[in-house]
Amino acid sequence: MITPDISQRAKEMRFSLIRTIAEKGMGKENVIPLWFGEGCWPTSSRAVQAVHEALAKNDHFYHPNSGKTSLRQALARYQQNLYQRPLTAQNITVTASGMQALALASQAIINHGDKVIYVDPVWPNLPEVFKIAGAQTQAVSLQAVNGKWQLDIEKLCAQLTPDHRAVMVNSPNNPTGWVMSEAEIQFLLEHCRRHDIWIISDDVYARLYPHGPVAPSFQHLAEEEDKILSINSFSKAWSMTGWRLGWIVAPASLEASLANLTEFNIACPAGFIQAAGEAMITSGEAEIAQLKQRLATGYDIVSRGLKEINSISFIEPQGAFYVLFGVEGYADSVALAMKLLDEAEVGLAPGGAFGPSAEGHLRLCYAQEPEILHEAIARIKSLLHGN
Amino acid sequence: MITPDISQRAKEMRFSLIRTIAEKGMGKENVIPLWFGEGCWPTSSRAVQAVHEALAKNDHFYHPNSGKTSLRQALARYQQNLYQRPLTAQNITVTASGMQALALASQAIINHGDKVIYVDPVWPNLPEVFKIAGAQTQAVSLQAVNGKWQLDIEKLCAQLTPDHRAVMVNSPNNPTGWVMSEAEIQFLLEHCRRHDIWIISDDVYARLYPHGPVAPSFQHLAEEEDKILSINSFSKAWSMTGWRLGWIVAPASLEASLANLTEFNIACPAGFIQAAGEAMITSGEAEIAQLKQRLATGYDIVSRGLKEINSISFIEPQGAFYVLFGVEGYADSVALAMKLLDEAEVGLAPGGAFGPSAEGHLRLCYAQEPEILHEAIARIKSLLHGN
Repeated sequence: MITPDISQRAKEMRFSLIRTIAEKGMGKENVIPLWFGEGCWPTSSRAVQAVHEALAKNDHFYHPNSGKTSLRQALARYQQNLYQRPLTAQNITVTASGMQALALASQAIINHGDKVIYVDPVWPNLPEVFKIAGAQTQAVSLQAVNGKWQLDIEKLCAQLTPDHRAVMVNSPNNPTGWVMSEAEIQFLLEHCRRHDIWIISDDVYARLYPHGPVAPSFQHLAEEEDKILSINSFSKAWSMTGWRLGWIVAPASLEASLANLTEFNIACPAGFIQAAGEAMITSGEAEIAQLKQRLATGYDIVSRGLKEINSISFIEPQGAFYVLFGVEGYADSVALAMKLLDEAEVGLAPGGAFGPSAEGHLRLCYAQEPEILHEAIARIKSLLHGN
Repeated sequence: MITPDISQRAKEMRFSLIRTIAEKGMGKENVIPLWFGEGCWPTSSRAVQAVHEALAKNDHFYHPNSGKTSLRQALARYQQNLYQRPLTAQNITVTASGMQALALASQAIINHGDKVIYVDPVWPNLPEVFKIAGAQTQAVSLQAVNGKWQLDIEKLCAQLTPDHRAVMVNSPNNPTGWVMSEAEIQFLLEHCRRHDIWIISDDVYARLYPHGPVAPSFQHLAEEEDKILSINSFSKAWSMTGWRLGWIVAPASLEASLANLTEFNIACPAGFIQAAGEAMITSGEAEIAQLKQRLATGYDIVSRGLKEINSISFIEPQGAFYVLFGVEGYADSVALAMKLLDEAEVGLAPGGAFGPSAEGHLRLCYAQEPEILHEAIARIKSLLHGN
């Protein structure tokens, strides 16, 4: 095979270490797959029904770039109710996934060479798509202090000088489960207002927060003129990973630019998928409640199980649906994930995928049925206890 | 409203003049909309059925970045049969639309500042997405010579020096209906081989070719090591505009890079939409035959009608589903499109959208029912004849 003559950005792209493990394990029948950020439960039949109805009405044609007006209005109402923040459809851009929302956000604000700081460990795609758009990215890492993940907010703000274009925060955080506090959010927001820095806030796990209806967010404090792009997705809270539907909350002044960037990326998300999203956003609260209950059960099983394994340690997550744990004596997360895949047939994501600060850890997604989680824990225990 | 603080690329984006007209007219009930490259016929019920079946089987989850293996294999077979060119699934990347295929192609090969030449008039999104990726674009224009659109292939190759990264050609061409000849394809291919220049070949209208089963294409001559990216879509030949599904044919050496870029743009197209695509690619030939027959009827009505209007002139298209016509005394295509929209209630795309070389023209999409086309022609005639 010839060496491909590709762009510098393509050469420099990190290949996802999550996929390295997953693609090795995906063919194997007995493997328990806990590598992706994806629950085991199919999407609500209401969403499926909405697709059937839309297709039956010949919803087979182009739509406006920013999304259907009815969905944008529904999302504006949803956001408004959740955060008590006045919004209109002009603040909402419907996107073909949270990933695509990030891609559009990066294209909308990043110039070649712009400096961007992000809080890690984090889903690798978040900094990567900003690099693809030309950004120079730099991580400020969470620290494990007194059994909690902590952000040194003063250090972050000290590094975040006016020559930075943006800061990216994902809270509730994938993979740590860290949740940024209201005070930290306020502090960072005021710093960014003072220095005219964009905030990219990945709110994809906002609803998967066990301590209330929604996690603390910049959306609670945001004003119309704030330079905040909130990234969201139907994937997690409504179990719609394969559907590829998300949205951006942005200042209304960006509406036309985001629409035009959508035109030049995908033109518009499919109308019948938007119909499914609208069904979920207007009457999917019971789905979220059910998922949160399942996640509470899942976390209980996993945390009890992992605590029984002496060599394992982890920090209790405050949100999202992962446990990030370390195993004594294993510093190389890819090697450890491979070992668990090969010898225990449990598929986990290597911490190294989320940045050097998560190296030596594995990420387990506990959005699974209890018996699967019990079995996974038993297999991990058996391997690490050597029996 | 505040002036948005957006990236240079977002500031420099051309807003689509097609959308300028369309969004003005879309609310109006009596307007005949012939502005988009979209037929009036819904998608085959087989595609709809494939979605129902996939969703019923809980196809709600993530898929591999490059697309489902079965669809990639089906597309490889389809391309192989069409062009008599050996291919495997590794040559195929499934994309969420032809537009997204262009976005991925641009990210895969373009470095900031790379020079790219394209043949215009052309769909504005094609050069625009390369500009978004950092390219400096330059047009070489088709010329109307002896009642035919002509490409000065020697002029194109003279301008296409080794310091150019890529050349982009769309044939059959939107908006002119120009089709590049086999000899021109061979000449340009040899030039690009000699000077190590990428060819981006937009083959979206390949099947909408009245003179044979498929239009001449670089795919007829391509070898595995050729630097050719062929862009394709289910939108036109299978009437699936709103579904957002397309594909790229590329050297197998680019498989991993295109997969990874997909990860960082949308992760994967929705599985149940891929199922619809697979149904069409394996058993949709009757759909294409029916569409070609409808287009022949549509073209016949439109060409006869336009020829009866003295002030109108046009060059007979050799492919795609548009007529690009000029009107004597009207040099400003946006003003003329507005006039036709306001006074005749016919919605057409202004030629200026496709580059300066199509200014003074209007693009009419004739993928419509006969009675609609008759009515549109009658309205245009009435306005221009002043009766």
